[in-house]
Amino acid sequence: MVPTVSKVSVATKRLLLGRPFRSDSLGHTLLPKRIALPVFASDAMSSVAYAPQEIFLVLSVAGLSALAYTPWIAIAVAIVMAVVVASYRQNVHAYPSGGGDYEVATVNLGPTAGLTVGSALLVDYVLTVAVSISSAAENIGSAIPFVSEHRVSFCVAAIIILAAVNLRGLKESGSVLAIPTYAFIVGVLGMLIWGFTEIFILGREIRSETAGFEIRAEHTHLMGIAFVFLIARAFSSGCAALTGVEAISNGVPAFRKPKSRNAATTLLLLGLIAVVLLLGIVFLAERIGAKYVMNPAEDLIGAPPGYQQKAMIAQLAHAVFDTFPAGFYFVATVTALILMLAANTAFNGFPVLGSVLAQDRYLPRQLHTRGDRLAFSNGILFLAVAAIAFVVAFGGEVTSLIQLYIVGVFVSFTLSQTGMVRHWTRLLRTETDPKARRRMMQSRVINTVGLVMTATVLVVVLITKFTAGAWIAILAMVILFVLMKAIHHHYASVQRELERTPADDEAVLPSRTHSIVLVSTLHLATKRALLFARATRPDVLEAVTVNVDDRDTRRLVSEWEDSDLRVPLKVIASPYREITRPIIDYVRRVRRESPRDVITVFIPEYVVGHWWEQILHNQSALRLKTRLLFEPGVMVTSVPWQLTSSDRRKADLDYHAPGDTRRALGGGPT
Amino acid sequence: MVPTVSKVSVATKRLLLGRPFRSDSLGHTLLPKRIALPVFASDAMSSVAYAPQEIFLVLSVAGLSALAYTPWIAIAVAIVMAVVVASYRQNVHAYPSGGGDYEVATVNLGPTAGLTVGSALLVDYVLTVAVSISSAAENIGSAIPFVSEHRVSFCVAAIIILAAVNLRGLKESGSVLAIPTYAFIVGVLGMLIWGFTEIFILGREIRSETAGFEIRAEHTHLMGIAFVFLIARAFSSGCAALTGVEAISNGVPAFRKPKSRNAATTLLLLGLIAVVLLLGIVFLAERIGAKYVMNPAEDLIGAPPGYQQKAMIAQLAHAVFDTFPAGFYFVATVTALILMLAANTAFNGFPVLGSVLAQDRYLPRQLHTRGDRLAFSNGILFLAVAAIAFVVAFGGEVTSLIQLYIVGVFVSFTLSQTGMVRHWTRLLRTETDPKARRRMMQSRVINTVGLVMTATVLVVVLITKFTAGAWIAILAMVILFVLMKAIHHHYASVQRELERTPADDEAVLPSRTHSIVLVSTLHLATKRALLFARATRPDVLEAVTVNVDDRDTRRLVSEWEDSDLRVPLKVIASPYREITRPIIDYVRRVRRESPRDVITVFIPEYVVGHWWEQILHNQSALRLKTRLLFEPGVMVTSVPWQLTSSDRRKADLDYHAPGDTRRALGGGPT
Repeated sequence: MVPTVSKVSVATKRLLLGRPFRSDSLGHTLLPKRIALPVFASDAMSSVAYAPQEIFLVLSVAGLSALAYTPWIAIAVAIVMAVVVASYRQNVHAYPSGGGDYEVATVNLGPTAGLTVGSALLVDYVLTVAVSISSAAENIGSAIPFVSEHRVSFCVAAIIILAAVNLRGLKESGSVLAIPTYAFIVGVLGMLIWGFTEIFILGREIRSETAGFEIRAEHTHLMGIAFVFLIARAFSSGCAALTGVEAISNGVPAFRKPKSRNAATTLLLLGLIAVVLLLGIVFLAERIGAKYVMNPAEDLIGAPPGYQQKAMIAQLAHAVFDTFPAGFYFVATVTALILMLAANTAFNGFPVLGSVLAQDRYLPRQLHTRGDRLAFSNGILFLAVAAIAFVVAFGGEVTSLIQLYIVGVFVSFTLSQTGMVRHWTRLLRTETDPKARRRMMQSRVINTVGLVMTATVLVVVLITKFTAGAWIAILAMVILFVLMKAIHHHYASVQRELERTPADDEAVLPSRTHSIVLVSTLHLATKRALLFARATRPDVLEAVTVNVDDRDTRRLVSEWEDSDLRVPLKVIASPYREITRPIIDYVRRVRRESPRDVITVFIPEYVVGHWWEQILHNQSALRLKTRLLFEPGVMVTSVPWQLTSSDRRKADLDYHAPGDTRRALGGGPT
Repeated sequence: MVPTVSKVSVATKRLLLGRPFRSDSLGHTLLPKRIALPVFASDAMSSVAYAPQEIFLVLSVAGLSALAYTPWIAIAVAIVMAVVVASYRQNVHAYPSGGGDYEVATVNLGPTAGLTVGSALLVDYVLTVAVSISSAAENIGSAIPFVSEHRVSFCVAAIIILAAVNLRGLKESGSVLAIPTYAFIVGVLGMLIWGFTEIFILGREIRSETAGFEIRAEHTHLMGIAFVFLIARAFSSGCAALTGVEAISNGVPAFRKPKSRNAATTLLLLGLIAVVLLLGIVFLAERIGAKYVMNPAEDLIGAPPGYQQKAMIAQLAHAVFDTFPAGFYFVATVTALILMLAANTAFNGFPVLGSVLAQDRYLPRQLHTRGDRLAFSNGILFLAVAAIAFVVAFGGEVTSLIQLYIVGVFVSFTLSQTGMVRHWTRLLRTETDPKARRRMMQSRVINTVGLVMTATVLVVVLITKFTAGAWIAILAMVILFVLMKAIHHHYASVQRELERTPADDEAVLPSRTHSIVLVSTLHLATKRALLFARATRPDVLEAVTVNVDDRDTRRLVSEWEDSDLRVPLKVIASPYREITRPIIDYVRRVRRESPRDVITVFIPEYVVGHWWEQILHNQSALRLKTRLLFEPGVMVTSVPWQLTSSDRRKADLDYHAPGDTRRALGGGPT
């Protein structure tokens, strides 16, 4: 039941966690470029499934004529993509450890910038799941109307299934992941080639099913600022195509040698394919008159009643493969698949990022031990619940969710590029070799261009999307930031408290040990506790019972006298029929009488197999233990008695999941 | 913040818990009859606030003419009341320990009957709260229309306030409780006297505001079986007046000596007053033409639009005090007050009953230590949530809730009377003194009449109310019964497991002690754990750390070597970056090598002051502790380190509530 960590996340976390610990034994798992591309590309590739239609949607507000601008916007997005790819190729060379944007920002700009990136990425993972699953639902819905009618339920179910699969541990490998990604590339490229061949070579006329409809435009003659704003908004939405591009820079250590070089090549390849797909889809869509609007029932004039608007890729596939329905279904399927894969990537990446943030004490420390099932599970559950909340709140509408999405990505891009510029500037300060200096200068120029570009896009996104929903993402980021800052502050103050010079009495060995065994009934568990306590040979050993019920106490005392236990039994009065307070008072009295003793309180405890048994047992013991820990100079020892039912649970706890061996891959901290 | 137990509950639990433990010191708190009456009577008295109107409501189905039967039904209810009072006077004499119906049934009929009574009473407490608060809302709503319009919200708020007050601890005393009860008696009796005086002596004509309306009857000419059924149903509803009569039999030990005699007198007094009030209300209501129907808007012909139907007592007060509005408001206020008081009684009685059931191992054992704040709180919370659920589910309609209510009461009555008959038969078997025999025979006759009467009413109630809602109460009782039976079974099987003869190796003192101190960082908390562990002088002492993070581990090892700690530090590899499993494996290895050693694992633990700090610390330690307890031959010792923030919480834990001293009153178990 222990979740396994897939190769995707292994690769991701390699970057996040830095140089692998036992790299000698890891050699055979390193990824060749042909596998690394699909492993890291699903997120970035999948975004071409929704980015183009968002461009069409925004422009459709200004009517049919505005759609003529779609190719230009697509080209602008492609240029940004090219610049970002070029910039991240510099990251890949400079930070082959795989520290990702978080590392780049932390090292070069300080912890506050790093934490900002961390918050942005956490929100980003949640939105990746929400957007990808919603888009998958839309694409499946284009082929199967039933899914379209129950979109939110479908999304929630899909997220729950993904979470469950990840909680149980997913057996997957790079080559399995490769199939849907390549199928998507082949499917969409095939569709584009077929479509353009028919149009330009065979000279046939292909028409989208929406080609005959008019658009009821809100503003037909936009001018000046308003028009610029609209174009900027369409461009912002199109920039959703860039989400996921940074993933490869997080996975450098997973590449075969020469790692950085191979990673950079793969990144270039990813960029090329994404640009081709993006441009191809937008050009073809514009050519065949495809339309995509917010409210098809109102905004499309001429549509038959009850017309269900298809996702853009589905519209293209439907038009191109009008005589070959299998083609249409193939494209719809692989699109949905790659989107699911993108969501799954977030399920792998989120706990890993949590672990890195925990290592730096921004999140509860126990998340750091990533091997731990619970820590991992908590991350998955949190991600699933948050993503479901977003999907439900926005009705599974990709268009609404995308307003929140890209802000986080571009915050991360911008800070990372700023960090890279600083990085080169710092290196240039000490570097003297002119050849190296030239290379660095060149890299700095590229990253500066990247910074300017991503910062510009960030500003554009903020201006055009803030009121449309981006403020929600920003608010979430701010909340996470403040929360993590507070956690960090807390850990730091505890550390200060623990590292001060010990007071005199703290460094002295206690003079004697005084052991107290708590007794309620005289049965096997109590006897074991007494035997164990005796085995520790304390200076004083006594059994203590609280007189909650007079009849019970009298029976206990007489049984005690009849037994061969040579330990004195003390009865403590409890006028209020409490257990905790009389014992605390007694312990304090012992402490007062001999302040240099250390007191050990032995509590017999039942170990049970079911959660409901836990409710029926040990509650008083648990409360007492919690309270005793507040007394200085007192240790609390639990002496377990394993009831038969505990075997069941122990077997559960000892279960080794099939993926355990593969988890070794992630074993390396820096 | 520890809840105090009011005198009401002290008295109640005295009965339930039996003879007080330190009765010498309790003398001054014993209640004179004039205080005992109101303390125990609020529940029974308050039921005359809703029982009469239910009789009218049921009969109104058959139209105006059927209302002529109301006095006869009231007389029948009064006869049942007289018989039940006479029967319980026998209980009071036979079981002065205050064991209540639960004790009578358990002792005479066995644990299954006792548990049935226990389940019935638990459900009954919930319904007492729901019915009383709903009725209070209706009565206040008769004076303040706003409350009537928001009845459910008002009820929910009232229950939450009652729960909060009881959670914080209520400072109340018998004399304070006496005021609303006597005020209610005075108010209603005054109203009746004034009303009858005006009618019969002054010869004035008093007319209820509903007197002029016609009733739209569903069945105007009911005949035969159907008519008998209707009368029986009206009678069943009227029997709601009997709820709470058994309370005095639960409180005998709280009376001044001669306890049984005083209690019996008080019971008689209570019965008399209740009968007078019940008959008076019904006769007056019939005389002045008052009506009470299910849906006033539809069933009352001639009512002005938007007419708000008043509660029956409010109708009477309104008619009688038509020239003296203060009288109307006084009656409405004291009626609401005594109903609130009745609900409050349930909040006192429910945790006490829970404690008794826990003592007999039908509920989690920790509920037994009643002094314990948590156990008490859980009972109050459970009661509040269940009562709110009922109020919301039934829209705060007294009429609907009452269908569920009386079943539990009469199950308890019937079983208790059966037990009493057995009790006398058993005593008669050995008793030889003819005078005593005659008295017992007489008592047995009374209890037999009581049994026949209550059993008959139970059957009538079951027949007439089952489909109307009584099945819900029965279902709840069955579920509670099965649950408590299962809990009892579990405890019994655990006890068997713990009381078997110890195996050979269980009785042998472990030969040596092997202590393992878990270390993650070398700070004060770790050093204290090492000092304390050394103080116990184990045969083997070693420090162990898990290598989760290579860099951290290397730093720890070098610090360790530089320190003056003369304890060897072992580093355990953790390829999966876990903590728990490597330690378990290590402990098992040690066990295998020397199976007769007892192993003590010392875990340094932070003690913190806020719940959120608890999340940030100790989580790995907690999980490890839980897991280690499954290993036989291993003790787990927590060595606390109190962080500064823990002072805050400790102060909380040490807080003595003002009512603490009074809690001593309840200190007596049997």
